[in-house]
Amino acid sequence: MALITVGTMAFDAIETPFGKTDRIIGGSATYVAYAAANFVKPIQQVSIIGFDYPQEELEELKKRGVKLDGVEMIKEKKSFFWSGRYHEDMNSRDTLVTDLNVLADFNPVIPESYQGSEFLMLGNLVPAVQLNVIKQMKKRPKLIVMDTMNFWMETAMSDLEEVLKHVDVLLVNDAEARQLTGQFSLVKAAKSILKMGPKYLIIKKGEHGALLFDQDSVFFAPALPLEDVFDPTGAGDTFAGGFIGHIAKTGDISFENMKRGIIVGSAMASFCVEKFGPTRLREISHHDIDLRIQQFKDLVNFEIELG
Amino acid sequence: MALITVGTMAFDAIETPFGKTDRIIGGSATYVAYAAANFVKPIQQVSIIGFDYPQEELEELKKRGVKLDGVEMIKEKKSFFWSGRYHEDMNSRDTLVTDLNVLADFNPVIPESYQGSEFLMLGNLVPAVQLNVIKQMKKRPKLIVMDTMNFWMETAMSDLEEVLKHVDVLLVNDAEARQLTGQFSLVKAAKSILKMGPKYLIIKKGEHGALLFDQDSVFFAPALPLEDVFDPTGAGDTFAGGFIGHIAKTGDISFENMKRGIIVGSAMASFCVEKFGPTRLREISHHDIDLRIQQFKDLVNFEIELG
Repeated sequence: MALITVGTMAFDAIETPFGKTDRIIGGSATYVAYAAANFVKPIQQVSIIGFDYPQEELEELKKRGVKLDGVEMIKEKKSFFWSGRYHEDMNSRDTLVTDLNVLADFNPVIPESYQGSEFLMLGNLVPAVQLNVIKQMKKRPKLIVMDTMNFWMETAMSDLEEVLKHVDVLLVNDAEARQLTGQFSLVKAAKSILKMGPKYLIIKKGEHGALLFDQDSVFFAPALPLEDVFDPTGAGDTFAGGFIGHIAKTGDISFENMKRGIIVGSAMASFCVEKFGPTRLREISHHDIDLRIQQFKDLVNFEIELG
Repeated sequence: MALITVGTMAFDAIETPFGKTDRIIGGSATYVAYAAANFVKPIQQVSIIGFDYPQEELEELKKRGVKLDGVEMIKEKKSFFWSGRYHEDMNSRDTLVTDLNVLADFNPVIPESYQGSEFLMLGNLVPAVQLNVIKQMKKRPKLIVMDTMNFWMETAMSDLEEVLKHVDVLLVNDAEARQLTGQFSLVKAAKSILKMGPKYLIIKKGEHGALLFDQDSVFFAPALPLEDVFDPTGAGDTFAGGFIGHIAKTGDISFENMKRGIIVGSAMASFCVEKFGPTRLREISHHDIDLRIQQFKDLVNFEIELG
């Protein structure tokens, strides 16, 4: 089944306690595509790039079944650029540079060739842009997943509330879930968010794993305990890509299958953080992914007799 | 099988965002006993109390199969008293008062009637005192579990290193594991600690769950997502009590069974935080515990086809 992913394709420059990079490939849609391409084809990318985006990177994506009809190229401008430095705990970072460049003009158009896709992944963008994408879909996708961030809660809350009414799954981190609802308890925050529109909520807690909620149930997946988190950039988007990739592959949008999606997403994210940027995601095989998912089973599996 | 627990029996006064208590019952050995008594009898308590310790509390423990031959009563002194205030996130707290009182004289003697016990739970105490208890055991217990804290790493590190050589399972929180080893990565910290003596390491991460390590394997159990953590006091000791209680009940010290112990400990801790002090632990039934363990199964259980 086809999956539309909307988000950024960008350059990042990253500093971590382990080293620093020059300008390397980044962007939310990039990570989603690399992760999801292991599970589903075609991936229909919607993004915007400048004249400086490398042709080899576009070829690399095409080879993986990523369609680029929806990727606009602006000849006069540079690609979106972000630079940041992680603190020692890797849970917090300082943004050093944000050059919007082409992103200032991003007004995505869904190509006719993408219409009819069953799955839509809306990366973190201006909520009005996310809503505009949904409205362009002639047939509502079977599942719409969206990411967002605290910045939109502060600057575009009413637009954000509107788009939330139109999506099935919201992906946020723990701080964002708290900010969106004013509830410190994640269980209470989840109850509030599920009243805002989404039927499912995924709360990402970084190294502390992820929670999946619907009205009746909750599921938890840990992050894999790693010797080193080398670079967390893109881990959240990679998680999203693994999640929606698994859902799109199977076509099954039940809670039970979303649990599997969370595990697949967690497995993909655990690869992402092993090297700078999407480097590790380009290397891994299906066999690597299977071994990693087995590690997750071993990590949490237990048998116990009750009574 | 019999379980010896060594630790404090105390009074606590607690403030949380949800309310505050007068002097209520607390102490590490208290929480361990209340949790473990659901699974194993006898529990052989080793502690020290003052003239002010309530007789009803001692009767309550006895009713649950807790032996008090090893609980010394000092007629001229008051019981250990601690008072603290939790911050809104419930992960940090300020100590308001620490009155050692009888604890300053605590030099535990293992009664003859406790000799031969198979399981020993050493609560957080001066490392030299912990070692002295181990040395009093005429027959080495089948499993020795110890708790400790950052304070001893700063003030009695060489004694702590010595006692670590004599125990099977070390219980610490994530900050303590990092401090003990100088390793930020918990996986690396675990490897270092397992070279110091313990064959098993449990790292408690509070609301973020707990990890169990041995040389070859790692297991993770989440904390139950709760609407409110009302009072975290004693949750770590209750976790320890559930863990060692399950191990002592089954007599099985394999890694597989320790995984079950971790789940039982997590379930008991999830009760502990629902009310002030050990209140909730006094109320719950075996049926409540079974239901709670089932919630843990539902929380993490998933089925996935590989390949």
